[in-house]
Amino acid sequence: MKEVGIGILGAGNVGRGLIEILKRDGESIAERTGLRLRVAAVFDRSYKKKEVALRGIPSGDHAEVVLDHPDVSIVVELLGGLMPSEQFIRSALSKGRSVVTANKALLASPVGPELCKLAFENNVNLGFEAAVAGAIPIIRSLRLHHLAGQVRSIHGILNGTCNFIITRMEDDGLDYAEALKLAQDKGFAEADPAFDVGGQDAAQKLRILAGLAFDAYFPESSIRVEGIESIRPVDLKIARRMGWVIRLLGVARRTTDSFLLRVHPAMIHANHILASVKEERNAIFLDSSSTGPALLVGQGAGSHPTATAVLSDIIELAGAEQVGPGLFQKNVTKISPEFEYRYYVRIQTQDQPGVLAEIARVFASHKISIASFHQEEGPEPVQLVIVTHAAPELAMADAVAQINRLPVVMLPSVMIRIENL
Amino acid sequence: MKEVGIGILGAGNVGRGLIEILKRDGESIAERTGLRLRVAAVFDRSYKKKEVALRGIPSGDHAEVVLDHPDVSIVVELLGGLMPSEQFIRSALSKGRSVVTANKALLASPVGPELCKLAFENNVNLGFEAAVAGAIPIIRSLRLHHLAGQVRSIHGILNGTCNFIITRMEDDGLDYAEALKLAQDKGFAEADPAFDVGGQDAAQKLRILAGLAFDAYFPESSIRVEGIESIRPVDLKIARRMGWVIRLLGVARRTTDSFLLRVHPAMIHANHILASVKEERNAIFLDSSSTGPALLVGQGAGSHPTATAVLSDIIELAGAEQVGPGLFQKNVTKISPEFEYRYYVRIQTQDQPGVLAEIARVFASHKISIASFHQEEGPEPVQLVIVTHAAPELAMADAVAQINRLPVVMLPSVMIRIENL
Repeated sequence: MKEVGIGILGAGNVGRGLIEILKRDGESIAERTGLRLRVAAVFDRSYKKKEVALRGIPSGDHAEVVLDHPDVSIVVELLGGLMPSEQFIRSALSKGRSVVTANKALLASPVGPELCKLAFENNVNLGFEAAVAGAIPIIRSLRLHHLAGQVRSIHGILNGTCNFIITRMEDDGLDYAEALKLAQDKGFAEADPAFDVGGQDAAQKLRILAGLAFDAYFPESSIRVEGIESIRPVDLKIARRMGWVIRLLGVARRTTDSFLLRVHPAMIHANHILASVKEERNAIFLDSSSTGPALLVGQGAGSHPTATAVLSDIIELAGAEQVGPGLFQKNVTKISPEFEYRYYVRIQTQDQPGVLAEIARVFASHKISIASFHQEEGPEPVQLVIVTHAAPELAMADAVAQINRLPVVMLPSVMIRIENL
Repeated sequence: MKEVGIGILGAGNVGRGLIEILKRDGESIAERTGLRLRVAAVFDRSYKKKEVALRGIPSGDHAEVVLDHPDVSIVVELLGGLMPSEQFIRSALSKGRSVVTANKALLASPVGPELCKLAFENNVNLGFEAAVAGAIPIIRSLRLHHLAGQVRSIHGILNGTCNFIITRMEDDGLDYAEALKLAQDKGFAEADPAFDVGGQDAAQKLRILAGLAFDAYFPESSIRVEGIESIRPVDLKIARRMGWVIRLLGVARRTTDSFLLRVHPAMIHANHILASVKEERNAIFLDSSSTGPALLVGQGAGSHPTATAVLSDIIELAGAEQVGPGLFQKNVTKISPEFEYRYYVRIQTQDQPGVLAEIARVFASHKISIASFHQEEGPEPVQLVIVTHAAPELAMADAVAQINRLPVVMLPSVMIRIENL
């Protein structure tokens, strides 16, 4: 088993989330990936206050505790901001350590391309899956899954705060200020929300995605940005009447001879799949010449979703086997032989009195309770539709087999489980 | 630049798609990944008939042309079926070559765990991103992105043929037989569709996904399978009335002390995001304790989507840098300064005659044509909503600024682009 030493810069929410995950899931990660990950050192300015989380890990308030530690082969930068993160990452890369970062501001800045170059020249790696849309594996998808052909366009819901505010106005009729306040109370929005609601956060993320998709660096001047500050519930109400919903979209598009980058609120068709993306979730809808349209949806932020993305980079950088020692090796002994479902049952009968009573009797004798009943108008066979309360699969199969044998039943019944998603 | 020799077993649609992609996009792939991929040898029983696609590549009708070729470090198995694929993969792994395969039948069979073990013991890799849901990076997501915590459930639309048939019944009212015929005409369904419409294809895929998510091998006996053969348009019609849609779902769920695997048609709420997955697309909705719910949607089959997934495995197995030599290095010179959109504009005016005429005049003077116009009932300010035809961004900004300066306009106007997705 390969041992990998990890150094963490910044023990904030995400850093502590990562330490927690490695402590709790280290064994199963080793079994799946063939890698034993060990936190070798942590730098945090207030490391003393974080004693509980950092217990047993060499920690300090100088970055050297990580950058100069001989066992650290992967440095995880979770400080955010431009400086001193830039300096620490440069130092780590120059010393031949790979770096994982969640720092979108730095990557979107002109320093981003320089750090990539530095990593390549030093024959080490720079992973940044966590920099855009936490739990959504969009960076890896663009890097590995969209190498063939051309990405034609990206439409992203890239800011969870904005999407949460819009959802509250849309579904609960809250006013903008109330929705923003609620987002702040829930910890989705900062005390100063301007960077989120003004679209700047989404713009940084979009520039990174466009850079990967279109294979270039997009500076801040390349993008036009508008926020959601002027949207009111009345706009969402009118939009709905016209068959639209409003979302803050980041759009990157390849045109015939140019590129288009925009972040702005947009009306989209209510039946488009992006319209189903609600609450604080992020989504990326991508159209590529070789795969066609694809969509990824998930949590964009939060300690564990982001730490999960950081972990995925660590695993990849550490050179995990595709096939760890445990893959598919355990036998499953506990399989549920049956489960309870609510059912939709369509029964096709002759048009004569007493049919429903007969059918109801069969369900009752199997202890299956009927939730609702409908009869379709039309010629024989009469279509009786019964929706049941939760019932065991075997009892249900038995009841329907018995119903199918009734003389009044003309054709086999159709039975479909109702899945509560 | 690292050179990587690839050997391909089977020059069918996917194999030829892969050769095409490598020929066309080899340069850009090298720039992004730091890898130069070269097809070193191809095995195909009728290689002589495929001369055009295979020109310049050593080819033959015996697998040894690939398996014994000294330059082949990654073997790509695209033959499908159990034998002789199993034998070829065993041979390649034993000889220290990594293998990429799209063979879901083999992986879901009891041979799957044996091949994984063999790869691990030989210190080589086995990639199978293409085995489930072609263009959707679900294998990599489960392997790298869901290592933390536990996957609680997977709900997948895993068979494109079934989803296409259901969509045609749902949206166009086609009967089952007509929809199936159309799927066959379009090449989505086999002449013998039983494996697809009976749910067996989805079941193989689900067993592979469950194996990765729950870290075990799920044999065929662990899953209950029902197909879509008995569903009729009337069921979709009644479902819609009740607020549901029908999808063929593969469901894998962790219960308190056991696992549940099912493939069956299911009623799901019409406003659930999976209900928006139509046509031949695949989707995987996954709930995990560390990332929360996530969704991935895309093409499940087809030559290029599948070849793209194969390529992503090759790149990963070959040990691509996260950061290739070209990442973010090019400067973008062509940025569209403006673009045409249709706009929604809400203008807030005093309640007096002639207002609309004034506003219409401003739009006309900017050559912006009005598509529709609505006025909301209510107290002052009156809410006038105008939807425009496509108009340039700058002209639009100018027109709205001018409208905002009209004495009758009481509050700044709200303007939202309409995005045609």
